[in-house]
Amino acid sequence: MLETTIGGARQARAGYALADLSLVPSRRTRDPSLVDVSWQLDAYKLDLPVFGAPLDAVTSPSTAALMAELGSFGVLNLEGLWTRYRDPQDVLAEIATLTPGPTATRRLQQLYAEPVQPELIGERVEALKAGGGVVAGSLTPQRVERWHGAALEAGLELLVVQGVAVTAQHVGPADADPLDLRSFTARYDIPVVLGGVSSAKTAIHLMRTGAVGVLVDGDASNVSTNNQTLGIEVPLATAIADVAAARSRYLEESGRYVHVIASGGISTSGDLAKALACGADAVMLGRPLAAAAEAPGGGAYWGFAAAHPSLPRGRFEQVETVGSTEVILHGPSDRDDGQLNLIGGLRRALGVTGYESLARFHESELAIWSRPQ
Amino acid sequence: MLETTIGGARQARAGYALADLSLVPSRRTRDPSLVDVSWQLDAYKLDLPVFGAPLDAVTSPSTAALMAELGSFGVLNLEGLWTRYRDPQDVLAEIATLTPGPTATRRLQQLYAEPVQPELIGERVEALKAGGGVVAGSLTPQRVERWHGAALEAGLELLVVQGVAVTAQHVGPADADPLDLRSFTARYDIPVVLGGVSSAKTAIHLMRTGAVGVLVDGDASNVSTNNQTLGIEVPLATAIADVAAARSRYLEESGRYVHVIASGGISTSGDLAKALACGADAVMLGRPLAAAAEAPGGGAYWGFAAAHPSLPRGRFEQVETVGSTEVILHGPSDRDDGQLNLIGGLRRALGVTGYESLARFHESELAIWSRPQ
Amino acid sequence: MLETTIGGARQARAGYALADLSLVPSRRTRDPSLVDVSWQLDAYKLDLPVFGAPLDAVTSPSTAALMAELGSFGVLNLEGLWTRYRDPQDVLAEIATLTPGPTATRRLQQLYAEPVQPELIGERVEALKAGGGVVAGSLTPQRVERWHGAALEAGLELLVVQGVAVTAQHVGPADADPLDLRSFTARYDIPVVLGGVSSAKTAIHLMRTGAVGVLVDGDASNVSTNNQTLGIEVPLATAIADVAAARSRYLEESGRYVHVIASGGISTSGDLAKALACGADAVMLGRPLAAAAEAPGGGAYWGFAAAHPSLPRGRFEQVETVGSTEVILHGPSDRDDGQLNLIGGLRRALGVTGYESLARFHESELAIWSRPQ
Amino acid sequence: MLETTIGGARQARAGYALADLSLVPSRRTRDPSLVDVSWQLDAYKLDLPVFGAPLDAVTSPSTAALMAELGSFGVLNLEGLWTRYRDPQDVLAEIATLTPGPTATRRLQQLYAEPVQPELIGERVEALKAGGGVVAGSLTPQRVERWHGAALEAGLELLVVQGVAVTAQHVGPADADPLDLRSFTARYDIPVVLGGVSSAKTAIHLMRTGAVGVLVDGDASNVSTNNQTLGIEVPLATAIADVAAARSRYLEESGRYVHVIASGGISTSGDLAKALACGADAVMLGRPLAAAAEAPGGGAYWGFAAAHPSLPRGRFEQVETVGSTEVILHGPSDRDDGQLNLIGGLRRALGVTGYESLARFHESELAIWSRPQ
Repeated sequence: MLETTIGGARQARAGYALADLSLVPSRRTRDPSLVDVSWQLDAYKLDLPVFGAPLDAVTSPSTAALMAELGSFGVLNLEGLWTRYRDPQDVLAEIATLTPGPTATRRLQQLYAEPVQPELIGERVEALKAGGGVVAGSLTPQRVERWHGAALEAGLELLVVQGVAVTAQHVGPADADPLDLRSFTARYDIPVVLGGVSSAKTAIHLMRTGAVGVLVDGDASNVSTNNQTLGIEVPLATAIADVAAARSRYLEESGRYVHVIASGGISTSGDLAKALACGADAVMLGRPLAAAAEAPGGGAYWGFAAAHPSLPRGRFEQVETVGSTEVILHGPSDRDDGQLNLIGGLRRALGVTGYESLARFHESELAIWSRPQ
Repeated sequence: MLETTIGGARQARAGYALADLSLVPSRRTRDPSLVDVSWQLDAYKLDLPVFGAPLDAVTSPSTAALMAELGSFGVLNLEGLWTRYRDPQDVLAEIATLTPGPTATRRLQQLYAEPVQPELIGERVEALKAGGGVVAGSLTPQRVERWHGAALEAGLELLVVQGVAVTAQHVGPADADPLDLRSFTARYDIPVVLGGVSSAKTAIHLMRTGAVGVLVDGDASNVSTNNQTLGIEVPLATAIADVAAARSRYLEESGRYVHVIASGGISTSGDLAKALACGADAVMLGRPLAAAAEAPGGGAYWGFAAAHPSLPRGRFEQVETVGSTEVILHGPSDRDDGQLNLIGGLRRALGVTGYESLARFHESELAIWSRPQ
Repeated sequence: MLETTIGGARQARAGYALADLSLVPSRRTRDPSLVDVSWQLDAYKLDLPVFGAPLDAVTSPSTAALMAELGSFGVLNLEGLWTRYRDPQDVLAEIATLTPGPTATRRLQQLYAEPVQPELIGERVEALKAGGGVVAGSLTPQRVERWHGAALEAGLELLVVQGVAVTAQHVGPADADPLDLRSFTARYDIPVVLGGVSSAKTAIHLMRTGAVGVLVDGDASNVSTNNQTLGIEVPLATAIADVAAARSRYLEESGRYVHVIASGGISTSGDLAKALACGADAVMLGRPLAAAAEAPGGGAYWGFAAAHPSLPRGRFEQVETVGSTEVILHGPSDRDDGQLNLIGGLRRALGVTGYESLARFHESELAIWSRPQ
Repeated sequence: MLETTIGGARQARAGYALADLSLVPSRRTRDPSLVDVSWQLDAYKLDLPVFGAPLDAVTSPSTAALMAELGSFGVLNLEGLWTRYRDPQDVLAEIATLTPGPTATRRLQQLYAEPVQPELIGERVEALKAGGGVVAGSLTPQRVERWHGAALEAGLELLVVQGVAVTAQHVGPADADPLDLRSFTARYDIPVVLGGVSSAKTAIHLMRTGAVGVLVDGDASNVSTNNQTLGIEVPLATAIADVAAARSRYLEESGRYVHVIASGGISTSGDLAKALACGADAVMLGRPLAAAAEAPGGGAYWGFAAAHPSLPRGRFEQVETVGSTEVILHGPSDRDDGQLNLIGGLRRALGVTGYESLARFHESELAIWSRPQ
């Protein structure tokens, strides 16, 4: 909590990105086979501390099923293309051919202008259910009140409520149906994950709503342009560590362990290891899974905010397809850049630093570099 | 106010640019529609906390009128092409075709060598008046004594006196007509904005002259080369925060609130939000408006200092035209880089960080990054 | 030991790379001819404080002989191509033609999938012996138990046990033959060098095993991608200084001086001088020798980890051949970039800073720069 | 004097380059015409606080004469091409055509292998004398004892003794003729400038030898590769400030003001202003004058160390010719990058920050940036 006076009486706080840090081995080493990276979210025991982000480029009913087979799950965006189009495959195929730049942005704005069709929400949830694994979907804070019912009815098992910043105190227009996350989360029948959050204070308020997890977003995704458009950028390593401290405080206060889930800016197994070392329990993956052969984006990658009708806040990018989802998660890798075998890399990171579990890995030694590594 | 000894007894102070900072959401969120970004400068109530800079590439009588329609105003450079040429359109058209480099610099030097025609000062002010909005013009400290009369007579309503550094204490040649900003500003009939300033001390002295606003220049503009030519560069975030502290001190001392106006190096809605978050009341826009379809520069951008006869201190650049002035200010945007919908971006920045007004936004949380974001 | 709170209760420590530092001359100067850069490792008196790294691109029986002629030695990787292939020349020739990227990685994986032929271990050691100089070979911690016998029997004189991180406490599978470095090193008949280590604590534990030297790896080599794949990167200057402090503590405790050997990321005579100035006694050279005309890699450079079957952690690179091994070590140089005449550069660095020996050079003045030099 | 522990017990000190700093205007402004930038070195009153460096690419007898006309002087390298060749014009013309890289380095090595012809030393000094201005030449510490006599006899008025590091205590071979700078400088009949120095301690020792000035070298020149070859790089801003403090201490001790002269890495009028603001009295110019139409290098730029026979420590570069020497020093400028009108830029820097003389300019306000400006 290094507060610095930038001028006059104005304070700012030193913030660190994952790229400013590295893990430094110490004390002992451990065979990667003796490392436990499993994770338990509410009633769900998961083999892997990663899951698919609610991005149309990443998670579809079929990739959610694939993730389930591989020991995890994927979250479907219930306000994305899958609930706006009965058959989004053509739309996705067209998007995959777009060239990054204003033309792509305009086309995304048009395609996402199509309204959500309420009946598709239930159908998609049923499709997720048919695929196995945790049935998980996401809604924005603005729409959750309107559409959560249909999703729940169709069998949703985990709800993610995600926005740039989600707080327990949202001030909305007087005539709008206000979402009170406090009562909503408490009374909701299934576990809820809320985010993004970026400070301990907001995090503890959200934990008190009854959420099973909070999302810490470094930025909405690697393609976020929140800094250019809003001046907002969250230093991910600092935010994870802050929210992890809130988790400890809330655990003491309530006896309940709320999971800290990092998201945004995590591209490699090295990033994954650092996010978990800083205090996260799990990571929501976007970019790494957009590079999968099975990715719905078909080689394109974009976030929900890239299609905002009046203020797009994300880049549309083409990414190299580097392997199957299985190889991305479990290897074997034939690349040296950390894009493949994310879980193998994580296991080995724990092994080299000598930790047997993710909980203990939160104590690993970190170095801060004066320039990005 | 982090003073560091750089060697021996020599001290230097840590300085931060807007790019070193980001806003970090916290406590609460707010709907952008419930955010007030209006601004009052002396008697003028303005919808937007931005206005057009006195640059020939940005503000002409007609773009000043356009800005007025859009809820703001533009400041005409009363020593620029519009008072040196009866019909500057041809000159502007020629400049728009120049290729950046020494040739462009030489041509600018020639074109600005044409003397100011005193009768044009009054005519231009009348043209501004015809366009509506606040009738605003700028003069340099060296010429203000000579030409302010003509401008005032023609109906000028707001005078900007701008130089690299403007101080209450200028030491001039013995035979020169000295400008005493103290008596000048006090006795002047219309509100005066003075700058650039970059320290609390100079700022408070200028406030005491009776100025309604002080300009804080990060550098004269994004195209400034003051660092290469003079070794001078003002860390904008630090300077804004310092001068904002001077504003508070002067308010206590006098009961009068003097506006802090940031300028230079502000290219995106993100930069705009950061400058205001650091403590500015408003921002004088150059580069963003040079990218407008209606910009007098026609795709070229340069500052007044770029045409200095013996020591040019600014680059001549070609900029991409990204949209109409209206779209640049109010959207809708089809770009992800913060160049369009500046006001929408600002509103949303306040919304995401939960502030209802610019005054409260001065308390927002900031992160310092070890490398530019 | 600058600990910083990055967020919550999470601490990280400022880490410095060699590139963050420079030597600053002071007090006196000394003629380079009056500088002693010799070095004694156990019974071996060596003219030069550098030796060849156990990389197939760098050390072969013949380049080890060449290094011996030049006043040093080379360490042969006893698990590399020379013990997997009876005639590795064809394999090396093929590798030299590979284009960097996944194809090269895949081919390396295939070539290193060939098992080690135990009988070749002895033969290679005998070949090293025939070449003169210190007969030195390396094994990984995983395989040292299995193969050290053959090497010792054939006349090995110095054993290097090298891994990403080597600690006195390795937790292995219950059914595996555990390597207890403590008893192993103590009972072993020849001097053992252990590493990489990156902290004082681990280092002192390894010193207590009886090792004559410990390796500090900035990263496994300049081509390491441990940061991208594992999130691990060791700040070399900091690690050397830490381990050098452990050397002093252990010397007081035991009366025995254990050598600190830096490795990884050392490309120029400037890097060499900095590593020794930070506290190293010697440097194990990879990249600089891969640029030799006699290098087994024939213009290619890669580390052992680049060929890992499921998680490659190193780049395959083509390097410019800059001169003979002799010219690389002893000059004369016709390049200005520090790639040639490493020892001449080191001598002159001591001369300019006024030190007569490497031991005194550990006290030289250093500057930290806020950005890499 | 920010000492940091980089690891263990190893300390390093924060060092700042000119590029890490900028001048920040404050208190008052002053008309550039009311600024005094003159300078007095021993008996010589000079209009400008800059002079030509002893580099073959920069100073010849004819450019020294030109500098004298313009209010300054140039220092001829008495061990350079002008004393190795009776007619160096052909050699210079050939060098001007070389392409940067090892071939150029080899050719420089050959050309500088030609021995110094003792009789040319006197002839060149006489030529300098004929050109007017201060008759100044440079020798290396290694050769000054051998050749100073001839130079003095021919009428040398100012001797510069320059090396990477010059100290009052040089340890040389027993059989060499030792240069005792203490007795040499004291007994020498003309003023002597010594350097480079980079610490207060060395500086004060050199001041006590009787030197009229000490040179602070950021690096031998902008083309120095001392960092890559020796690991040595001096943070110029820090070194100037340190040595300026030594100047004050020595002034108190002796009543004598020894001039601090900065050198190396100064390319623009902005750099010049920063070096003087940090505490230098004058600047020795290399790179800026190599870009003059009259430069002996004819568009090429290299330092003496670039031609070292066994360890070249400087780049050979081609530079753009930007104007006459007069325009480089006095303008008018038609470039925005600080390469022209160095003295005009300096005057204006003093004016904008409100200082009337260089002595007062040493108190100007500085900002440290976290990244180069």
